[in-house]
Amino acid sequence: MIQTPYLLFLGDAPDPLAAKVAQGIKDWRPDYAIGQYRMEGCRADMGLPDLSLQEAKAAGAKTLVIGVANRGGVISAAWKKVLVTALEEGFDLASGLHNLLRDEPDLKAVAEATGRSLHDVRVPSVTYPIANGEKRRGKRCLAVGTDCSVGKMYTSLCMEREMAARGMKASFRATGQTGILITGDGVPLDAVIADFMAGSVEWLTPDNDPDHWDLIEGQGSLFHVSYSGVTMALIHGGQPDALILSHEPTRTHMRGLPGYGLPSLEALRDLSLSLARIANPDCQVVGVSVNTAALDAEAARACCAEIEARMGLPTVDPFRDGAGRLVDALADL
Amino acid sequence: MIQTPYLLFLGDAPDPLAAKVAQGIKDWRPDYAIGQYRMEGCRADMGLPDLSLQEAKAAGAKTLVIGVANRGGVISAAWKKVLVTALEEGFDLASGLHNLLRDEPDLKAVAEATGRSLHDVRVPSVTYPIANGEKRRGKRCLAVGTDCSVGKMYTSLCMEREMAARGMKASFRATGQTGILITGDGVPLDAVIADFMAGSVEWLTPDNDPDHWDLIEGQGSLFHVSYSGVTMALIHGGQPDALILSHEPTRTHMRGLPGYGLPSLEALRDLSLSLARIANPDCQVVGVSVNTAALDAEAARACCAEIEARMGLPTVDPFRDGAGRLVDALADL
Repeated sequence: MIQTPYLLFLGDAPDPLAAKVAQGIKDWRPDYAIGQYRMEGCRADMGLPDLSLQEAKAAGAKTLVIGVANRGGVISAAWKKVLVTALEEGFDLASGLHNLLRDEPDLKAVAEATGRSLHDVRVPSVTYPIANGEKRRGKRCLAVGTDCSVGKMYTSLCMEREMAARGMKASFRATGQTGILITGDGVPLDAVIADFMAGSVEWLTPDNDPDHWDLIEGQGSLFHVSYSGVTMALIHGGQPDALILSHEPTRTHMRGLPGYGLPSLEALRDLSLSLARIANPDCQVVGVSVNTAALDAEAARACCAEIEARMGLPTVDPFRDGAGRLVDALADL
Repeated sequence: MIQTPYLLFLGDAPDPLAAKVAQGIKDWRPDYAIGQYRMEGCRADMGLPDLSLQEAKAAGAKTLVIGVANRGGVISAAWKKVLVTALEEGFDLASGLHNLLRDEPDLKAVAEATGRSLHDVRVPSVTYPIANGEKRRGKRCLAVGTDCSVGKMYTSLCMEREMAARGMKASFRATGQTGILITGDGVPLDAVIADFMAGSVEWLTPDNDPDHWDLIEGQGSLFHVSYSGVTMALIHGGQPDALILSHEPTRTHMRGLPGYGLPSLEALRDLSLSLARIANPDCQVVGVSVNTAALDAEAARACCAEIEARMGLPTVDPFRDGAGRLVDALADL
């Protein structure tokens, strides 16, 4: 568990896109984001107060979160200077970079000397159990996609926000690096050992109040041959009561697989449901989430209307239109 | 790749069942099994010559394979003495034990000093790629089960033997510890990192002659919620042309999951085929393999006949009756 609140390290981000982790934290956990730390030449700006390490410390920040991708896969000397100072000032560090903080001898030595923690969320820090398949109390909702990277995480985060606004009990459950940095906790599922995948999802979504919903971050796609095993573990470990179908309507082939076309939403519905019902016979598909970022407002409306008429399910772009209708569908279950 | 032939270490096996890895090697790769090494009190016997380390070395043995489970999860001092001497005599060591050879400081030191290899087949030794889903040359057959431990490995090994006898090109492809020790090579799929599962199966079953068959060892079951993600990776990474349905007719619930009943063979057929056709639209279910070990001869015949009539597929216990009809079905594809 990463200590909050955070100071967001934007480093020398060459453009706003490089700081998308910081953007995610600012968008979805604004109360965690006390300020930003920018270096010379930084071209990203979260619109947060620019704080020095000491100012952030005084304001209560506990962890410096690396909210930016590093250039060339190297943690530069300029970054190091800030990171080492942060440890000495009493911050923990958290990172989703491919290069692990713990693999940097200087950071490791200073963290040990100062008693601070290095959180590398790309690798698991927990010994997960083998899944036992036992029914757990509480409710669970999982987003499944026609492809990878179609908006499953944003769908679940939008739903959590809407449910919180309505006073419903809901927890976003992160299963990827960005989600973990946004929320401070979760399972880096793509890095878990095969035999323990489903067990890690059970661990992530334990017994809860009967009216509590876990909103489980989806990964991959049943139709994406590189990652479908990970998706399967989410479906069987998560034993969802509700599925949301996620789709990006302009994709022409499966991400990274030029030879593979996208499945229809009908095929996704039928396959997901038959698999989910192995673990939870009561599972239902409750709605469709469309990522319309590539469409203008009118085309987006037409796209959602066409899918809604065809599938007979509430269909929205939750980021554009709000997740109200998806949450209504959950509440009606 | 483990160097062959082997000397099979049976240690102080308390009973024949404890030596099932040795039994598998002797049954399926008799030409690899030059002899056995038994200690005081050993109650297993493969019917192979009892050889000293020096006799085995003179006979050409390259690797001492631990063909027996250790008691209490500890590599005993009595075993150690033999293993250290074997390294000094020029043997490599191979093991599928949970305790890794490499985690024993004395074995590691002696192996380094003598230049010998320690093969812990329980953990991967290769950096596998992410699956790319590209169509590969050659044919592939995968056994999928209604449950775990229903005879998938034995089915593939029986088929490989029958195909070799007919002069067909066929390779058993091991995906579990026992299979790897039997054949000397393979992927310990349950220990692979989630993102690389399907890629490891692609790596294991590369381009081959158009008339060559890979007989891929199955793992888990699509209907076993603890391990279904591993099965999924085999289906999508293996892109099988042919599926064999494997079944154990006396099982009353899924292995280790008392709350989960077994699926019908029809459900297994339909689900496996729809998933397999994502990676290979031409995939066919070609036969049923029934593990009738718990039935007498008459009941076994009746069971296979009933399934064959119901499913319209050749149905045999390949270990009892031979794999001829399953191989006929492959040849007819």
